[in-house]
Amino acid sequence: MKIVSAIKRVPEEIQNRLKDRFPETEFLFCHGIDEAEAHLPEAEVFVTYGEDLTPDRIEKAVQLKWIMVLSAGMDKMPFAEIDERGVVVTNVRGIHAKPMAEYALSMFLQVSRQAKTLIEQENQHQWNRRPTMNEISGNTMVFLGTGAIAQETARLAKAFHMKTIGFSKTGKDKPHFDETYTQDRLDEFLPYGDFVTAVLPSTVETKYILNIDHFKAMPDHAIFLNMGRGDLVSSEVLLEAVRHPHIHHAVLDVFEQEPLPEDHPFWDEERVTVTPHISGISPHYVPRGFEVFEENLELYLNGNGEMKNIIDLKRGY
Amino acid sequence: MKIVSAIKRVPEEIQNRLKDRFPETEFLFCHGIDEAEAHLPEAEVFVTYGEDLTPDRIEKAVQLKWIMVLSAGMDKMPFAEIDERGVVVTNVRGIHAKPMAEYALSMFLQVSRQAKTLIEQENQHQWNRRPTMNEISGNTMVFLGTGAIAQETARLAKAFHMKTIGFSKTGKDKPHFDETYTQDRLDEFLPYGDFVTAVLPSTVETKYILNIDHFKAMPDHAIFLNMGRGDLVSSEVLLEAVRHPHIHHAVLDVFEQEPLPEDHPFWDEERVTVTPHISGISPHYVPRGFEVFEENLELYLNGNGEMKNIIDLKRGY
Repeated sequence: MKIVSAIKRVPEEIQNRLKDRFPETEFLFCHGIDEAEAHLPEAEVFVTYGEDLTPDRIEKAVQLKWIMVLSAGMDKMPFAEIDERGVVVTNVRGIHAKPMAEYALSMFLQVSRQAKTLIEQENQHQWNRRPTMNEISGNTMVFLGTGAIAQETARLAKAFHMKTIGFSKTGKDKPHFDETYTQDRLDEFLPYGDFVTAVLPSTVETKYILNIDHFKAMPDHAIFLNMGRGDLVSSEVLLEAVRHPHIHHAVLDVFEQEPLPEDHPFWDEERVTVTPHISGISPHYVPRGFEVFEENLELYLNGNGEMKNIIDLKRGY
Repeated sequence: MKIVSAIKRVPEEIQNRLKDRFPETEFLFCHGIDEAEAHLPEAEVFVTYGEDLTPDRIEKAVQLKWIMVLSAGMDKMPFAEIDERGVVVTNVRGIHAKPMAEYALSMFLQVSRQAKTLIEQENQHQWNRRPTMNEISGNTMVFLGTGAIAQETARLAKAFHMKTIGFSKTGKDKPHFDETYTQDRLDEFLPYGDFVTAVLPSTVETKYILNIDHFKAMPDHAIFLNMGRGDLVSSEVLLEAVRHPHIHHAVLDVFEQEPLPEDHPFWDEERVTVTPHISGISPHYVPRGFEVFEENLELYLNGNGEMKNIIDLKRGY
């Protein structure tokens, strides 16, 4: 059986480890979809970032049984066509947790400790100790989402002696949260959110669920951070929230439109920090992704257990 | 008995709490030393940041038995004169731990996640996802110093799954350190220091103990952070270390001369980040300082225990 990978620059070390561990399996490591395309008809397993999968290509892959997506967001995948063919899809849900948790903590520290001001002073050779240095310790962090990324962020927040309150559809208890509630009770708890972290995936149910009243409910000193999906809240609502201002600052890594247009007002807004969707980037990404794949391949070949992170193709996550 | 405080702007809440808790004691909250000076002859206890104490003033304070210093560095205090009079000195050792640990983590995150580059890109309205995002998780942090500040920094480093190695005069085990050694073995372990954090106090023994060979021993990707004292390492050595470069970056909050002169080469050095001695600043500083004072005042009045943080006037710390 043949495994075709469209992942560019897979380290030799990983390629050799896989070949050694699964000697009966033929691996074809291609440099992107252009190179992989010709081999799709022979592939039983296809390893991809997911963005290169078109209905057309699914049709070509006549022997395909399993698609391993080395990504967590899968907005662009043709789920209907895949489902029709009975192909299983797994992803790497969870491997973004570490870098994204670090991103969140680094940005709350950056805003609380006025890094932009300090860097500007440094550029000006200016020794000025007056910018207020706020501590992040002891604050309350409210989370929209209680999944793997939120949990890892909450774990670090707890290390900084924070109180963590999570909101999800079910309101179920999750590790590292002091309290968890269903999303319909958000209004009640936003007034406690010194920091508000949004890590909801984009589904129909989470589109534009935050409105201006949510920002009005947050404390004046609140820092809002969105590293989930850009369509959680409209640009208009965010601009109103920071311009009034209803909150102290918004840290945005995801946007309704990406790349964020050069003339978008967010770039110059004093109470907004824009980062170019980098929260999940990590030098350890590919190795960690292939570790998940390796574990699943073992389960796939030996059939003695269900694979990890199987996607519900009807729900899309 | 009378307590004179020269601390400016002590919140009403704290003043009232002290007066309520110690009704037999007379408190005089003065706005700085200029206002306090006239009351020194009546003071049995003097609360100060320590910089305003001159031999002259010690002499005036004829009833003085205890000086409570709301600071940790006490370079400017006339210890000989104080010792001669048999006055006890206590300080607030440890209350800098939280903000300084936050400072250290925030700066390692800032450099590892290229915040300066991202902020510059934001200023330019530039969407560019190429800057490398390194994780701080899983690295090794080497500490010069294993006191309260180093321990709190190590505690947070452990939350980020780091290995922590501490160096001190005695090499004694301390909480949150995986390993501790005596300073003479520094050379052996610097090659493991992805991050090197210096939090040594300034004593004769720690002056200019780091030389260029120490920086040569660190990995090329090492980030060195000094939030202890500026005379741990000379500007010349640091410049050579970052210009060669022997290390990736130096984060400096303390300097041989403060304020750092406007024409000092550190300001413009790409591999150096200068902050204006702000690591210990916190909005919670005065309340936390008075909490230590309150605890000590209880011990002082009821004489049933030794006060906390008594300074050895011969050693100066």
